[in-house]
Amino acid sequence: MLQWRNSLARHATRQSVSVLFTSVGRRVELMRAFREAYETLGLDGKIVGVDIDPLAPALQVVDHPYIVPRLNSPEFIPTLVEICRQEKITLVFPLIDPDIPILAANRTILEETGARVVVISSNAVALTADKWLTNQFFERLGLPTPRSWLPAQCDPDEIDYPVFIKPRRGSAAKSTFRVSDPEELRFFSRYVPDPIIQEYLSGPEITNDVICDLEGEVLSVVSRQRIEVRWGEVAKGVTIYNPDIIDACVQIARALPAVGPITVQCMMKDDVPHFTEINARLGGGLPLGIAAGVDSPKWLLAKAAGIAVDIPPLGSYQRDLYLTRFDESFFLTKDDRAQMASRCL
Amino acid sequence: MLQWRNSLARHATRQSVSVLFTSVGRRVELMRAFREAYETLGLDGKIVGVDIDPLAPALQVVDHPYIVPRLNSPEFIPTLVEICRQEKITLVFPLIDPDIPILAANRTILEETGARVVVISSNAVALTADKWLTNQFFERLGLPTPRSWLPAQCDPDEIDYPVFIKPRRGSAAKSTFRVSDPEELRFFSRYVPDPIIQEYLSGPEITNDVICDLEGEVLSVVSRQRIEVRWGEVAKGVTIYNPDIIDACVQIARALPAVGPITVQCMMKDDVPHFTEINARLGGGLPLGIAAGVDSPKWLLAKAAGIAVDIPPLGSYQRDLYLTRFDESFFLTKDDRAQMASRCL
Repeated sequence: MLQWRNSLARHATRQSVSVLFTSVGRRVELMRAFREAYETLGLDGKIVGVDIDPLAPALQVVDHPYIVPRLNSPEFIPTLVEICRQEKITLVFPLIDPDIPILAANRTILEETGARVVVISSNAVALTADKWLTNQFFERLGLPTPRSWLPAQCDPDEIDYPVFIKPRRGSAAKSTFRVSDPEELRFFSRYVPDPIIQEYLSGPEITNDVICDLEGEVLSVVSRQRIEVRWGEVAKGVTIYNPDIIDACVQIARALPAVGPITVQCMMKDDVPHFTEINARLGGGLPLGIAAGVDSPKWLLAKAAGIAVDIPPLGSYQRDLYLTRFDESFFLTKDDRAQMASRCL
Repeated sequence: MLQWRNSLARHATRQSVSVLFTSVGRRVELMRAFREAYETLGLDGKIVGVDIDPLAPALQVVDHPYIVPRLNSPEFIPTLVEICRQEKITLVFPLIDPDIPILAANRTILEETGARVVVISSNAVALTADKWLTNQFFERLGLPTPRSWLPAQCDPDEIDYPVFIKPRRGSAAKSTFRVSDPEELRFFSRYVPDPIIQEYLSGPEITNDVICDLEGEVLSVVSRQRIEVRWGEVAKGVTIYNPDIIDACVQIARALPAVGPITVQCMMKDDVPHFTEINARLGGGLPLGIAAGVDSPKWLLAKAAGIAVDIPPLGSYQRDLYLTRFDESFFLTKDDRAQMASRCL
């Protein structure tokens, strides 16, 4: 009888929560972590995933997959709006950087459906999408950050080598080069689109999953040292604990201000973390944080559903936990692929 | 009683077969395919995997993992020899290109243990390891191959752009660049180590798993069109069927001559396959061929064990079967990692 009453009470306070992930791509582990969070919480709701490619692996594991127009199509946002309406979406999460500015710019029309767009403001997007502005932001916060130059500010014959060159607005480590001498710098300053030049820091690189709620409150920071990276994604990593990094991440999240989870990158030099980038989305290496005890999918869903959950103090996660990744495959027949390709609105 | 007699007869003709894979890395799916082949055949034997890195994902799924010295260490071959002896290894398979020449060069000492080294001759290695010599080999066979130059043979102001530049002895698509004009060509000819310059073929690229037995007989050719590649590894692909490619692959395998499985790369141009590279090892995309019905692990084990298996005619595999890959993770505690690191001889 007590059990029955508890069950009733539970139903009275909980609501259904459905989430939409844009550009789900290869994020199968993340989708499965959200699925597990639904089960742990006993929460009703669907996982909806969209992508432009019917072969996107994570489309194969969500409840409702949709094929959508490309980001730069005028139909992209109307399609998302319609999916949000039909699926009664509660939360919209971007999973790749290019989706962030367009979701931020169209927040109002998306949120008219009743969904909440889990992205930072357009002003904050302008900052995080540009590595030069991000560098200046870290300087304003008084945080260590690599010395940086735009090509016009930098005389190739006067600076110390090696340096690192990358696009101001790039992602996934595309077009990034280590530069050894003035000749290489002159070449790559033209070859790399709209580049930024930075002091070369040998690392290791630390990625920090900063889990914030929709009001920007920092629920958790997990620091993961990158041991091996492939195409800008972690292939091997290990959780570490550094209170200076945690403090800096909290400061960054508040100053941005963060809305939902963000990822903060830093490179170590002489034991000092030098902050380099902010990605305003759920990070690709999040499964390591989850395995280390930071069950962010559960916390995010619980907050959205109004379910109370105990969130441990900052920094209380399993340290020295290693992640190592391999390729797992899905196989689709021509018919399977055609069926997925037909999942349009 | 009949069952008992069959069982005896089976034991009389079958022997235990144990396989050693060098540099197992991320090849978890391949290890699992071999495990399944053992079970299907009812064959006794172990899967032994070695790597320099205790975090190599595939070490976590083999029967006996070992941490070995680096390839260029004088202790590498003696360690392999000792593992072959202790584990009574039947077949040694390399899984990355750099292992191939050293296994070929040390075939005699390795085979004194009773193992068979599944690699081509040192002469054939010299050819496949050098993209310039490979290009000349394809020309001698009368097969279409991209026009190629060494830097000294090529006047940057006289050739048609774009071209493609890559190291003669590289692998995994490292240091490969599309080159648009003479200035870029002059730069990359110095930047890329010991480069080869090739006519740019837009593709698609076709990877062919050419499954040969230890005597070089071609058991099967599976052609996989690459849809998306990450770090030189297929991320999305689809099986296709082109009889000209199959014929050419058989010709290449015989001329090399092949020992065990090889992978042949070609790029399409105006519907004509232009052959570019040979990797004398089990290809990274082999799981797609296996899913399409080419159960090469089973065939290779059966041949080694003297078990008769039906091998379908060349070209009889499932066409239009798609593969799409995502990251799956293992998690190891500090103790797990230390325990794996202690798996030395």
